[in-house]
Amino acid sequence: MNPTDKDFLAQAIQMATDNVAAGGGPFGALLVKGSQIVAASANQVVADHDPTAHAEIMTIRKAANILKTFDLSGYTLYSSCEPCPMCLGAIYWSRISRVVYASDRKDAALAGFRDAHIYQEIKLDPDQRMIPFEQIDVPQKGREFTDWIASTQKMTY
Amino acid sequence: MNPTDKDFLAQAIQMATDNVAAGGGPFGALLVKGSQIVAASANQVVADHDPTAHAEIMTIRKAANILKTFDLSGYTLYSSCEPCPMCLGAIYWSRISRVVYASDRKDAALAGFRDAHIYQEIKLDPDQRMIPFEQIDVPQKGREFTDWIASTQKMTY
Repeated sequence: MNPTDKDFLAQAIQMATDNVAAGGGPFGALLVKGSQIVAASANQVVADHDPTAHAEIMTIRKAANILKTFDLSGYTLYSSCEPCPMCLGAIYWSRISRVVYASDRKDAALAGFRDAHIYQEIKLDPDQRMIPFEQIDVPQKGREFTDWIASTQKMTY
Repeated sequence: MNPTDKDFLAQAIQMATDNVAAGGGPFGALLVKGSQIVAASANQVVADHDPTAHAEIMTIRKAANILKTFDLSGYTLYSSCEPCPMCLGAIYWSRISRVVYASDRKDAALAGFRDAHIYQEIKLDPDQRMIPFEQIDVPQKGREFTDWIASTQKMTY
């Protein structure tokens, strides 16, 4: 019998629970096609001193490295919790086809995580955020895009 | 004479331009404290087969690895272009204090990049997005957060 969405979610939550017991953050994720898990990871922020090492990011990085492609269309990502804005961005860039999760940003907030806060901040104009985002004009602005558009050797992604 | 915001931006744009010449994506970033550059990277998506390897993510990962911390408060990130939602998330998680950029999401769209599209998608309810985000309930839901809240050995991040 093929594993169901609920089976994969239970596995992601088990990874998250095991990670807490090992001193890590309470998040786990799996990337799946059909009934095959191609990559999985728990949160590695503390272990790796890497603020980007969320379970979903690590799973995407592992899968892309195994499959040697930045295009993960056709795959489903299972996560113990709703992906944060960083991980949502990674999901769009990697063209993952479907995302399934158990807890959400409100549950994460109750456990002390800032996902919901970042979802609020991202909607604001750049100069209205808690972290100031400032656009400054320089004469060199846009040269890289002009070169990119003209390039005959580029690989779009 | 100390380098100015415009000097650091020009350097980020130069990295982006050099990266295009080398076959990579048109983006560069630097992380700075005072007048000291602690880490820098161009976009590495194609070279690394890594959809998360944006210039800002790579710069944050390098700096965190060098400094052995996931907390980059006090640092300024200079980027050739406005950070995408993924990179914005990474900036918030790493507590970077200030972000400065030259081109923005509209310029990136003209060059064929989906930053502005992802900014639109992230505002939508999860089940209204082009990539479906589905919350499914399972009996195990939230165990990892209960354990995390009870843990006496956790390092919050």
